[in-house]
Amino acid sequence: MNFDICLFDDFETLDAFGPVEIFGKIPGDHLMRYLSQEGGMVRSAQGTKILTEPFSAASGGTLLIPGGMGTRKLVDDDGFIEGLSRLAKDSEYCLCVCTGSALLAKTGLLSGRSATSNKMAFEWVKSTDSTVNWVKKARWVVDGKFYTSSGVSAGIDMAFGFIADKFSLTMAQKIAAGVEYIWNSNKDEDPFAELY
Amino acid sequence: MNFDICLFDDFETLDAFGPVEIFGKIPGDHLMRYLSQEGGMVRSAQGTKILTEPFSAASGGTLLIPGGMGTRKLVDDDGFIEGLSRLAKDSEYCLCVCTGSALLAKTGLLSGRSATSNKMAFEWVKSTDSTVNWVKKARWVVDGKFYTSSGVSAGIDMAFGFIADKFSLTMAQKIAAGVEYIWNSNKDEDPFAELY
Repeated sequence: MNFDICLFDDFETLDAFGPVEIFGKIPGDHLMRYLSQEGGMVRSAQGTKILTEPFSAASGGTLLIPGGMGTRKLVDDDGFIEGLSRLAKDSEYCLCVCTGSALLAKTGLLSGRSATSNKMAFEWVKSTDSTVNWVKKARWVVDGKFYTSSGVSAGIDMAFGFIADKFSLTMAQKIAAGVEYIWNSNKDEDPFAELY
Repeated sequence: MNFDICLFDDFETLDAFGPVEIFGKIPGDHLMRYLSQEGGMVRSAQGTKILTEPFSAASGGTLLIPGGMGTRKLVDDDGFIEGLSRLAKDSEYCLCVCTGSALLAKTGLLSGRSATSNKMAFEWVKSTDSTVNWVKKARWVVDGKFYTSSGVSAGIDMAFGFIADKFSLTMAQKIAAGVEYIWNSNKDEDPFAELY
Protein backbone atom coordinates (compact mmCIF):
# COMPACT_ATOMS: atom_id res chain seq x y z
CA MET A 1 0.00 0.00 0.00
CA ASN A 2 1.38 3.40 -0.99
CA PHE A 3 0.57 6.70 0.69
CA ASP A 4 0.18 10.16 -0.82
CA ILE A 5 0.38 12.92 1.76
CA CYS A 6 -1.22 16.10 0.39
CA LEU A 7 0.48 19.16 1.86
CA PHE A 8 -0.04 22.92 1.45
CA ASP A 9 1.16 26.08 3.18
CA ASP A 10 -0.18 26.41 6.72
CA PHE A 11 -1.26 22.80 7.06
CA GLU A 12 -1.43 21.64 10.69
CA THR A 13 1.76 19.69 11.41
CA LEU A 14 0.32 16.87 13.53
CA ASP A 15 -2.69 16.38 11.22
CA ALA A 16 -0.24 15.02 8.66
CA PHE A 17 2.57 13.55 10.76
CA GLY A 18 0.44 11.64 13.25
CA PRO A 19 -1.00 9.36 10.54
CA VAL A 20 2.34 9.39 8.63
CA GLU A 21 4.05 7.91 11.69
CA ILE A 22 1.44 5.18 12.04
CA PHE A 23 1.28 4.31 8.31
CA GLY A 24 5.07 4.11 8.29
CA LYS A 25 4.89 1.21 10.75
CA ILE A 26 2.79 -1.04 8.52
CA PRO A 27 5.03 -4.04 7.78
CA GLY A 28 6.35 -4.40 4.23
CA ASP A 29 7.34 -1.94 1.54
CA HIS A 30 5.21 1.11 0.93
CA LEU A 31 6.07 4.40 -0.64
CA MET A 32 5.29 7.53 1.35
CA ARG A 33 5.02 10.47 -1.03
CA TYR A 34 4.75 14.07 0.14
CA LEU A 35 2.81 16.07 -2.44
CA SER A 36 1.71 19.65 -3.00
CA GLN A 37 -0.12 21.19 -5.94
CA GLU A 38 3.02 22.36 -7.75
CA GLY A 39 5.65 20.56 -5.71
CA GLY A 40 8.57 22.32 -4.00
CA MET A 41 8.85 23.65 -0.46
CA VAL A 42 5.75 23.80 1.70
CA ARG A 43 5.62 25.42 5.16
CA SER A 44 3.44 24.00 7.92
CA ALA A 45 1.54 26.21 10.39
CA GLN A 46 4.34 25.39 12.86
CA GLY A 47 7.03 26.61 10.46
CA THR A 48 8.32 23.24 9.23
CA LYS A 49 9.67 23.49 5.69
CA ILE A 50 9.01 20.27 3.79
CA LEU A 51 10.13 19.33 0.29
CA THR A 52 7.26 17.97 -1.84
CA GLU A 53 6.63 16.49 -5.26
CA PRO A 54 3.78 17.81 -7.46
CA PHE A 55 0.29 16.28 -7.35
CA SER A 56 1.13 14.57 -10.67
CA ALA A 57 3.55 12.24 -8.80
CA ALA A 58 0.72 10.66 -6.77
CA SER A 59 0.71 6.88 -6.47
CA GLY A 60 -3.08 6.54 -6.44
CA GLY A 61 -2.89 4.58 -3.19
CA THR A 62 -4.10 6.01 0.12
CA LEU A 63 -4.46 9.79 0.11
CA LEU A 64 -4.13 11.78 3.35
CA ILE A 65 -5.50 15.34 3.51
CA PRO A 66 -4.58 17.27 6.67
CA GLY A 67 -6.36 20.40 7.88
CA GLY A 68 -5.08 23.65 9.29
CA MET A 69 -5.50 27.38 8.69
CA GLY A 70 -4.28 26.93 5.12
CA THR A 71 -7.62 25.32 4.26
CA ARG A 72 -9.45 28.65 4.78
CA LYS A 73 -7.92 30.08 1.62
CA LEU A 74 -7.79 26.84 -0.37
CA VAL A 75 -11.53 26.12 -0.23
CA ASP A 76 -11.87 29.10 -2.62
CA ASP A 77 -8.92 28.14 -4.85
CA ASP A 78 -10.53 26.47 -7.87
CA GLY A 79 -7.22 25.22 -9.29
CA PHE A 80 -6.26 23.54 -6.02
CA ILE A 81 -9.70 21.99 -5.53
CA GLU A 82 -9.65 20.67 -9.11
CA GLY A 83 -6.24 19.08 -8.55
CA LEU A 84 -7.32 17.63 -5.21
CA SER A 85 -10.50 16.28 -6.78
CA ARG A 86 -8.42 14.34 -9.30
CA LEU A 87 -6.15 12.99 -6.52
CA ALA A 88 -9.14 11.96 -4.40
CA LYS A 89 -10.98 10.31 -7.30
CA ASP A 90 -7.83 8.38 -8.29
CA SER A 91 -7.06 7.28 -4.72
CA GLU A 92 -7.85 3.83 -3.43
CA TYR A 93 -8.71 5.29 -0.02
CA CYS A 94 -8.98 8.91 1.05
CA LEU A 95 -8.46 10.03 4.66
CA CYS A 96 -9.04 13.58 5.93
CA VAL A 97 -7.92 14.91 9.29
CA CYS A 98 -9.50 17.94 10.96
CA THR A 99 -10.51 20.68 8.47
CA GLY A 100 -9.01 18.62 5.64
CA SER A 101 -12.61 17.42 5.21
CA ALA A 102 -13.60 20.97 4.16
CA LEU A 103 -11.19 20.68 1.22
CA LEU A 104 -12.57 17.28 0.25
CA ALA A 105 -16.15 18.58 0.64
CA LYS A 106 -15.34 21.33 -1.87
CA THR A 107 -14.53 18.68 -4.50
CA GLY A 108 -18.14 17.45 -4.17
CA LEU A 109 -16.97 13.91 -3.44
CA LEU A 110 -18.46 13.93 0.07
CA SER A 111 -21.92 14.95 -1.18
CA GLY A 112 -24.58 12.65 0.31
CA ARG A 113 -21.95 10.94 2.46
CA SER A 114 -21.28 11.05 6.21
CA ALA A 115 -18.21 12.85 7.50
CA THR A 116 -16.82 14.64 10.55
CA SER A 117 -14.26 17.36 11.19
CA ASN A 118 -12.62 19.61 13.78
CA LYS A 119 -15.12 20.47 16.50
CA MET A 120 -14.06 24.08 17.09
CA ALA A 121 -14.33 24.80 13.35
CA PHE A 122 -17.39 22.60 12.81
CA GLU A 123 -19.85 25.30 11.73
CA TRP A 124 -17.39 26.67 9.17
CA VAL A 125 -16.71 23.19 7.78
CA LYS A 126 -20.45 22.50 7.52
CA SER A 127 -20.87 25.70 5.50
CA THR A 128 -18.52 24.40 2.79
CA ASP A 129 -21.08 21.78 1.65
CA SER A 130 -24.54 21.42 3.17
CA THR A 131 -25.23 18.23 1.18
CA VAL A 132 -22.77 16.29 3.39
CA ASN A 133 -24.18 14.50 6.44
CA TRP A 134 -21.86 16.19 8.94
CA VAL A 135 -21.64 14.02 12.08
CA LYS A 136 -20.74 16.14 15.09
CA LYS A 137 -20.19 13.41 17.69
CA ALA A 138 -17.54 11.09 16.25
CA ARG A 139 -13.81 10.58 16.70
CA TRP A 140 -13.82 9.51 13.06
CA VAL A 141 -16.35 8.51 10.40
CA VAL A 142 -16.04 5.92 7.62
CA ASP A 143 -18.17 6.12 4.46
CA GLY A 144 -17.04 3.95 1.58
CA LYS A 145 -13.43 4.74 0.74
CA PHE A 146 -13.59 8.03 2.67
CA TYR A 147 -12.37 8.36 6.25
CA THR A 148 -12.72 11.70 8.07
CA SER A 149 -11.55 12.50 11.59
CA SER A 150 -12.09 15.14 14.23
CA GLY A 151 -9.41 17.71 15.06
CA VAL A 152 -5.64 17.16 14.90
CA SER A 153 -4.85 14.23 17.19
CA ALA A 154 -8.02 12.34 16.22
CA GLY A 155 -6.19 11.62 12.97
CA ILE A 156 -3.88 9.26 14.85
CA ASP A 157 -6.84 7.28 16.20
CA MET A 158 -8.37 7.17 12.71
CA ALA A 159 -5.09 5.93 11.23
CA PHE A 160 -5.18 2.98 13.64
CA GLY A 161 -8.86 2.41 12.78
CA PHE A 162 -7.95 2.38 9.09
CA ILE A 163 -5.23 -0.21 9.70
CA ALA A 164 -7.64 -2.32 11.77
CA ASP A 165 -10.19 -2.21 8.92
CA LYS A 166 -7.84 -2.80 5.98
CA PHE A 167 -5.22 -5.05 7.60
CA SER A 168 -6.16 -6.36 11.05
CA LEU A 169 -7.00 -5.27 14.57
CA THR A 170 -3.94 -7.18 15.78
CA MET A 171 -1.70 -5.15 13.49
CA ALA A 172 -3.22 -1.89 14.73
CA GLN A 173 -2.75 -2.91 18.35
CA LYS A 174 0.82 -4.07 17.74
CA ILE A 175 1.78 -0.79 16.05
CA ALA A 176 0.10 1.18 18.88
CA ALA A 177 2.14 -0.74 21.47
CA GLY A 178 5.33 -0.15 19.45
CA VAL A 179 4.85 3.63 19.40
CA GLU A 180 3.55 3.52 23.00
CA TYR A 181 0.24 5.05 21.98
CA ILE A 182 -2.91 4.67 24.04
CA TRP A 183 -5.32 4.21 21.13
CA ASN A 184 -8.82 5.65 21.50
CA SER A 185 -10.25 2.84 19.42
CA ASN A 186 -13.97 3.65 19.60
CA LYS A 187 -14.74 5.92 16.65
CA ASP A 188 -18.10 6.95 18.14
CA GLU A 189 -16.65 8.13 21.45
CA ASP A 190 -15.94 11.85 21.21
CA PRO A 191 -15.32 13.84 24.38
CA PHE A 192 -14.83 17.06 22.38
CA ALA A 193 -18.17 17.19 20.52
CA GLU A 194 -19.93 19.00 23.35
CA LEU A 195 -17.09 21.40 24.20
CA TYR A 196 -17.65 23.92 21.43
CA MET B 1 9.91 31.00 24.71
CA ASN B 2 11.79 29.82 21.63
CA PHE B 3 12.15 26.21 20.53
CA ASP B 4 15.09 24.48 18.86
CA ILE B 5 14.12 21.19 17.23
CA CYS B 6 17.22 19.03 16.73
CA LEU B 7 16.80 16.83 13.64
CA PHE B 8 18.99 14.22 11.94
CA ASP B 9 18.59 11.59 9.25
CA ASP B 10 16.25 8.77 10.30
CA PHE B 11 14.72 10.62 13.22
CA GLU B 12 11.25 9.31 14.12
CA THR B 13 8.70 11.69 12.62
CA LEU B 14 6.17 11.82 15.47
CA ASP B 15 8.88 12.11 18.15
CA ALA B 16 9.55 15.59 16.81
CA PHE B 17 6.22 16.70 15.37
CA GLY B 18 4.02 15.67 18.29
CA PRO B 19 5.72 18.13 20.66
CA VAL B 20 6.19 20.68 17.82
CA GLU B 21 2.42 20.76 17.34
CA ILE B 22 1.79 21.31 21.05
CA PHE B 23 4.53 23.92 21.53
CA GLY B 24 3.18 25.78 18.51
CA LYS B 25 -0.11 26.34 20.37
CA ILE B 26 1.46 28.22 23.29
CA PRO B 27 -0.04 31.71 23.09
CA GLY B 28 2.29 34.56 22.11
CA ASP B 29 5.28 34.79 19.80
CA HIS B 30 7.87 32.05 19.82
CA LEU B 31 10.35 31.02 17.20
CA MET B 32 10.38 27.38 16.18
CA ARG B 33 13.77 26.54 14.67
CA TYR B 34 14.51 23.25 12.91
CA LEU B 35 18.19 22.44 13.30
CA SER B 36 20.63 19.78 12.19
CA GLN B 37 24.37 19.53 12.74
CA GLU B 38 25.34 21.13 9.42
CA GLY B 39 21.94 22.42 8.32
CA GLY B 40 20.33 21.55 4.99
CA MET B 41 17.91 18.77 4.13
CA VAL B 42 17.23 16.06 6.68
CA ARG B 43 15.15 12.93 6.00
CA SER B 44 12.94 11.40 8.69
CA ALA B 45 12.54 7.62 9.12
CA GLN B 46 9.19 8.06 7.34
CA GLY B 47 10.82 9.78 4.36
CA THR B 48 9.86 13.39 5.13
CA LYS B 49 12.46 15.81 3.75
CA ILE B 50 12.82 18.82 6.04
CA LEU B 51 14.90 21.94 5.54
CA THR B 52 17.02 22.78 8.58
CA GLU B 53 19.42 25.44 9.83
CA PRO B 54 22.80 24.47 11.34
CA PHE B 55 23.20 23.92 15.10
CA SER B 56 24.88 27.34 15.26
CA ALA B 57 21.49 28.99 14.62
CA ALA B 58 20.06 27.70 17.92
CA SER B 59 18.11 30.15 20.06
CA GLY B 60 19.23 28.68 23.39
CA GLY B 61 15.59 28.31 24.45
CA THR B 62 13.90 24.92 24.74
CA LEU B 63 15.72 22.13 22.94
CA LEU B 64 13.82 19.09 21.65
CA ILE B 65 15.73 15.90 20.80
CA PRO B 66 13.69 13.19 19.06
CA GLY B 67 14.69 9.54 18.81
CA GLY B 68 14.55 7.05 15.97
CA MET B 69 16.85 4.61 14.21
CA GLY B 70 19.20 7.48 13.33
CA THR B 71 20.33 7.57 16.98
CA ARG B 72 21.99 4.14 16.64
CA LYS B 73 24.73 5.61 14.45
CA LEU B 74 24.88 9.03 16.10
CA VAL B 75 25.72 7.75 19.60
CA ASP B 76 29.14 6.89 18.13
CA ASP B 77 29.56 10.12 16.15
CA ASP B 78 31.85 12.25 18.32
CA GLY B 79 31.36 15.40 16.24
CA PHE B 80 27.58 15.17 16.50
CA ILE B 81 27.63 14.45 20.24
CA GLU B 82 29.98 17.39 20.81
CA GLY B 83 27.66 19.71 18.90
CA LEU B 84 24.61 18.36 20.72
CA SER B 85 26.38 18.76 24.04
CA ARG B 86 26.88 22.45 23.34
CA LEU B 87 23.22 22.86 22.33
CA ALA B 88 22.00 21.05 25.43
CA LYS B 89 24.29 23.01 27.76
CA ASP B 90 23.18 26.31 26.23
CA SER B 91 19.47 25.42 26.32
CA GLU B 92 17.12 26.74 28.97
CA TYR B 93 15.25 23.42 28.97
CA CYS B 94 16.07 20.19 27.18
CA LEU B 95 13.42 17.62 26.24
CA CYS B 96 14.14 14.18 24.79
CA VAL B 97 11.59 11.87 23.23
CA CYS B 98 12.10 8.10 22.90
CA THR B 99 15.73 7.15 22.12
CA GLY B 100 16.64 10.84 21.93
CA SER B 101 17.67 10.29 25.57
CA ALA B 102 20.47 7.97 24.36
CA LEU B 103 21.96 10.90 22.43
CA LEU B 104 21.70 13.19 25.45
CA ALA B 105 23.16 10.47 27.69
CA LYS B 106 26.20 10.32 25.39
CA THR B 107 26.92 14.00 26.12
CA GLY B 108 27.32 13.05 29.81
CA LEU B 109 24.74 15.63 30.85
CA LEU B 110 22.34 12.99 32.21
CA SER B 111 25.00 11.41 34.43
CA GLY B 112 23.63 10.99 37.97
CA ARG B 113 20.20 12.16 36.84
CA SER B 114 16.92 10.28 36.36
CA ALA B 115 15.63 9.69 32.83
CA THR B 116 13.43 7.37 30.79
CA SER B 117 13.26 6.24 27.17
CA ASN B 118 11.56 3.96 24.65
CA LYS B 119 10.52 0.71 26.33
CA MET B 120 11.31 -1.65 23.45
CA ALA B 121 14.82 -0.18 23.14
CA PHE B 122 15.31 0.29 26.88
CA GLU B 123 18.25 -2.08 27.36
CA TRP B 124 20.14 -0.51 24.47
CA VAL B 125 19.52 3.00 25.81
CA LYS B 126 20.69 1.94 29.29
CA SER B 127 23.92 0.66 27.76
CA THR B 128 24.78 4.14 26.47
CA ASP B 129 25.43 5.46 30.01
CA SER B 130 25.18 3.29 33.12
CA THR B 131 25.64 6.32 35.41
CA VAL B 132 22.12 7.53 34.55
CA ASN B 133 19.25 6.45 36.83
CA TRP B 134 17.14 4.92 34.04
CA VAL B 135 13.51 4.77 35.19
CA LYS B 136 11.66 2.01 33.35
CA LYS B 137 8.10 2.70 34.52
CA ALA B 138 7.36 6.31 33.58
CA ARG B 139 5.50 8.09 30.80
CA TRP B 140 8.03 10.86 31.26
CA VAL B 141 10.64 11.92 33.83
CA VAL B 142 11.68 15.42 34.94
CA ASP B 143 15.10 16.11 36.47
CA GLY B 144 16.13 19.73 36.65
CA LYS B 145 15.97 21.27 33.21
CA PHE B 146 15.90 17.83 31.55
CA TYR B 147 12.67 16.14 30.49
CA THR B 148 12.78 12.64 28.96
CA SER B 149 9.83 10.63 27.67
CA SER B 150 9.01 7.06 26.73
CA GLY B 151 8.57 6.02 23.10
CA VAL B 152 7.18 8.16 20.28
CA SER B 153 3.71 9.29 21.36
CA ALA B 154 4.73 9.73 25.00
CA GLY B 155 6.49 12.87 23.78
CA ILE B 156 3.08 14.50 23.25
CA ASP B 157 2.08 13.80 26.85
CA MET B 158 5.43 15.13 28.07
CA ALA B 159 5.00 18.31 26.00
CA PHE B 160 1.71 18.97 27.81
CA GLY B 161 3.40 18.20 31.14
CA PHE B 162 6.13 20.69 30.30
CA ILE B 163 3.55 23.39 29.51
CA ALA B 164 1.70 22.61 32.75
CA ASP B 165 4.98 22.98 34.70
CA LYS B 166 6.35 26.08 32.98
CA PHE B 167 3.13 27.93 32.14
CA SER B 168 -0.01 26.48 33.77
CA LEU B 169 -2.16 23.37 33.97
CA THR B 170 -5.05 25.39 32.55
CA MET B 171 -3.00 26.27 29.47
CA ALA B 172 -2.03 22.63 28.95
CA GLN B 173 -5.67 21.52 29.25
CA LYS B 174 -6.88 24.26 26.94
CA ILE B 175 -4.34 23.35 24.24
CA ALA B 176 -5.22 19.65 24.62
CA ALA B 177 -8.92 20.44 24.10
CA GLY B 178 -8.05 22.59 21.07
CA VAL B 179 -6.16 19.78 19.35
CA GLU B 180 -8.75 17.25 20.61
CA TYR B 181 -6.09 15.28 22.44
CA ILE B 182 -6.91 12.98 25.35
CA TRP B 183 -3.90 13.84 27.49
CA ASN B 184 -2.36 11.06 29.60
CA SER B 185 -1.41 13.54 32.29
CA ASN B 186 0.05 11.21 34.91
CA LYS B 187 3.76 10.95 34.17
CA ASP B 188 4.12 7.89 36.40
CA GLU B 189 1.43 5.85 34.67
CA ASP B 190 3.06 3.72 31.99
CA PRO B 191 1.11 0.82 30.47
CA PHE B 192 4.04 -0.09 28.19
CA ALA B 193 6.78 -0.61 30.81
CA GLU B 194 5.83 -4.26 31.35
CA LEU B 195 5.26 -5.12 27.67
CA TYR B 196 8.85 -5.58 26.62
